[in-house]
Amino acid sequence: MKAAIISVGSELVCGHTVDSNASWLSRELTDIGIPTVRHSCVGDDERGLADTVAQSAALAEVVLVTGGIGPTPDDITRQAVARAAGVELTVNESVLRRIEERFSSWGRRMSANNRIQAFFPQGAEVIENARGTAAGFAVKAGTSEVIVLPGVPAEMKSMWVEHVRGRLACRVSSAIASGSVDCFGRGESDITAELHDLMAPGRNPAVGDTAEDAIIRIRICAAADTIQEASALLERDRVEITRRLGEIVFGNDGESLQGAVVKALVGRKKTLSTAESCTGGLLSGAVTEVPGASACFLEGITAYHNDAKVRLLGVSRALIEKHGAVSEEVAGAMAEGARRLSGADYALSTTGIAGPSGGTPDKPVGLVSIAATSSERTICRTLHLRGDRATVRDRTVKHALNLLRIAFLSER
Amino acid sequence: MKAAIISVGSELVCGHTVDSNASWLSRELTDIGIPTVRHSCVGDDERGLADTVAQSAALAEVVLVTGGIGPTPDDITRQAVARAAGVELTVNESVLRRIEERFSSWGRRMSANNRIQAFFPQGAEVIENARGTAAGFAVKAGTSEVIVLPGVPAEMKSMWVEHVRGRLACRVSSAIASGSVDCFGRGESDITAELHDLMAPGRNPAVGDTAEDAIIRIRICAAADTIQEASALLERDRVEITRRLGEIVFGNDGESLQGAVVKALVGRKKTLSTAESCTGGLLSGAVTEVPGASACFLEGITAYHNDAKVRLLGVSRALIEKHGAVSEEVAGAMAEGARRLSGADYALSTTGIAGPSGGTPDKPVGLVSIAATSSERTICRTLHLRGDRATVRDRTVKHALNLLRIAFLSER
Repeated sequence: MKAAIISVGSELVCGHTVDSNASWLSRELTDIGIPTVRHSCVGDDERGLADTVAQSAALAEVVLVTGGIGPTPDDITRQAVARAAGVELTVNESVLRRIEERFSSWGRRMSANNRIQAFFPQGAEVIENARGTAAGFAVKAGTSEVIVLPGVPAEMKSMWVEHVRGRLACRVSSAIASGSVDCFGRGESDITAELHDLMAPGRNPAVGDTAEDAIIRIRICAAADTIQEASALLERDRVEITRRLGEIVFGNDGESLQGAVVKALVGRKKTLSTAESCTGGLLSGAVTEVPGASACFLEGITAYHNDAKVRLLGVSRALIEKHGAVSEEVAGAMAEGARRLSGADYALSTTGIAGPSGGTPDKPVGLVSIAATSSERTICRTLHLRGDRATVRDRTVKHALNLLRIAFLSER
Repeated sequence: MKAAIISVGSELVCGHTVDSNASWLSRELTDIGIPTVRHSCVGDDERGLADTVAQSAALAEVVLVTGGIGPTPDDITRQAVARAAGVELTVNESVLRRIEERFSSWGRRMSANNRIQAFFPQGAEVIENARGTAAGFAVKAGTSEVIVLPGVPAEMKSMWVEHVRGRLACRVSSAIASGSVDCFGRGESDITAELHDLMAPGRNPAVGDTAEDAIIRIRICAAADTIQEASALLERDRVEITRRLGEIVFGNDGESLQGAVVKALVGRKKTLSTAESCTGGLLSGAVTEVPGASACFLEGITAYHNDAKVRLLGVSRALIEKHGAVSEEVAGAMAEGARRLSGADYALSTTGIAGPSGGTPDKPVGLVSIAATSSERTICRTLHLRGDRATVRDRTVKHALNLLRIAFLSER
């Protein structure tokens, strides 16, 4: 069984409002073992919506429609679904009475507009809405069932949970378990080449990947008769993927790189300070994004000008003159200075040319030096990063966190 | 002329990732006078996507497709679009060479997977991607033009701005001039109440607003026979809106708040340092996001622990004990310390309770103190912010920048 989702509303299709209902419903459907094959989002146009319903019904056994069942003239979902199902709208007297009663309980007279909310496609089953006047409905269109819910997220969600989720779940045989293995430090195509057998189409578990800002998440989605079996399949793949990818794996199930680093520091009762140049505070900003980071993070110095590197971090001016501010030598001295002055167990540093200007043939835009230091050793790396200023800075932050993680936080 | 938008990716259709590209593109299309009639979101299924492209091409003269043109086996957009257009894929030798060169400039060997990124539907026009290896393309399908861009938002947006927006805008009959007046510091409903006459439906220029992370942009879109007339209409509204909204206006046409602050500092040849606690480096990170910020930004101290406030910023321990670290007194002392130690003309500070834990009945989560200082005076503010940790930190950064802008950078 497959599902398609349609969101109705001109405010959505013109981009004024971001549709959050569709992704919420997709996740709910995934959880009960029903894959979604298409989301559509259309304006308040009866003909266009009727076509979309018919096309979706050709793809999927369940079509979920949200929005457009209110009382105003631009609410056209009930008319469009009736058209797609090839039936007329008829009044449901008991719903009509309920709406009238609701208005009179509020001490208001029901306007004529509101009568439309008691009309449903012939043969439709009414789905009650405990939170609003717009009842939903379910009706056959061809071989599919079209289920219509309001667009107001709170109403839609409570009706889904109370009336729809259960009736769909009991039609599906299998249980689904899903998760991800989260990595940083290699390219997407490199990683997927390593996993191509697991990513074969049609395999169970289904293995795919998403890449966002250089974080690669290997998604695993396992189906089985019971949730226990599905979870066992998921974990078997998780172990295999983690083994193959090795040290680039930093976490699971959507964890952040900074979250993994903070967790490792706090678990080891270790502290961290930072010394930044090109990242300008984003490295300490990333660490302190994690709730509870104050248990491990002491302080950060953004030494943007060379004077500040000398005065705040104790980097020698001769070292800067000899090697340049963007060099492994200066990165190392920055990290060592930050560690010494703060008394932290570890320190991280960044210095580089984020662009768009400031590059030279010797030291082009994207050249970055980072360092991680402990009481025992200092490790420096030079990075050649591509992309615009924001990308260079973001990747520098991630490489610095990852250097600390791999060099100092990976022993058991 | 109408548009349809298709977002491709199993991670989108399963609800794992929320699609932000479609609504962004819709707003851009609206700005150039092209209504969007349908968004669709489909998984990595060649047949399903080909059908969706064909159905969208039947509805709209322009079909914008984002995503699925990477190098991995689940990237099927180029195949699906070729199928919908009824043509074969053929290699583009110059794109192939460019990809090979890019890999060799990174000192990496191009994997066989990456060859696919040089294949395009026969007759397609290649759209260059300055930020990644996945070039886009435009190809005819029936009477429509299908334009394919990467799913990575930064790549998609820069390709849209550089290569697509202009070619679509010039096909629309009337001339369109669009821009925005950018504000921070009041609520969206307050601001729009002030402008309700200008926002009347059907008015030309069309005036609307978008709110994102508390930045409200009043969008103005003027249509006329010539671009000169359209621009004149746009500017007339811009002046009126700026007059009505007063000091909350910080810029125009999508400017960032930090961009406006850096521009004002550099224009006045003034320098800035920062002292941060709850924002953990995000304030200096925001300032240094602006290219050329090194002309005004000297250094930043993230004094996360109280010891660091005393040692690095010279805040007196007695002051912290008397008023607490989250107080206007300590915020003022942090800013003054940062200014004194760095020799900057101005300094900004932040201290607060970002949550989710750490709140008390007296000092709840969301309580933040900020300060701005010059050689002449120190101005402190207390904020009561709502939202999660990330929101509290983001709003604190913006209020601090805005305090500096209004208190010290608004005189002519």
